[in-house]
Amino acid sequence: MEMLKVSSTSDPTATGGAIANGIREAGSIEVQVIGPRAVNQAVKAIAIARGYLAASGVDLYCVPAFKTVRVGEAQQEKTAIQFIVRPRHELQGGSRLGRL
Amino acid sequence: MEMLKVSSTSDPTATGGAIANGIREAGSIEVQVIGPRAVNQAVKAIAIARGYLAASGVDLYCVPAFKTVRVGEAQQEKTAIQFIVRPRHELQGGSRLGRL
Repeated sequence: MEMLKVSSTSDPTATGGAIANGIREAGSIEVQVIGPRAVNQAVKAIAIARGYLAASGVDLYCVPAFKTVRVGEAQQEKTAIQFIVRPRHELQGGSRLGRL
Repeated sequence: MEMLKVSSTSDPTATGGAIANGIREAGSIEVQVIGPRAVNQAVKAIAIARGYLAASGVDLYCVPAFKTVRVGEAQQEKTAIQFIVRPRHELQGGSRLGRL
């Protein structure tokens, strides 16, 4: 599954587009964030991606979970939030969306 | 559907318990937040509620959306984030969880 890192300065509209593309191409996507503002940007992006895909009859949902990650040169341990984003009904080989 | 308002100062563990209880009792719950820190607390609470319910074989997911709300005496318009939280598979009249 493709992994998209979202930061506190990520643009929700552009990120929403990237999430929608990831769903179209691979059927699901992992969004990973560290920090409250990044969580907020990711949630807004997922809500925006829902809007993009709703037009194609696709209903997105997300599953949030904690994930321990190591960041930077010092490999410092941090607790990230991971969102697995998926359509409510499995896409059939991407072809259905590919035609839209 | 019950509505739970989460603020920037809400405790994620207690809120997670309230979400898990809402799911057990009504099958789904709406979590409403305004502002980045409240979004973060709500996401953490949903991740914690997932942990509580996973032990009962219930897999929670959430659907984020924007919602315009009016707050305070001045009824000022604000954009809230609404999370509809549901189990992946419908609970059967709550009886399955009630027995656990």
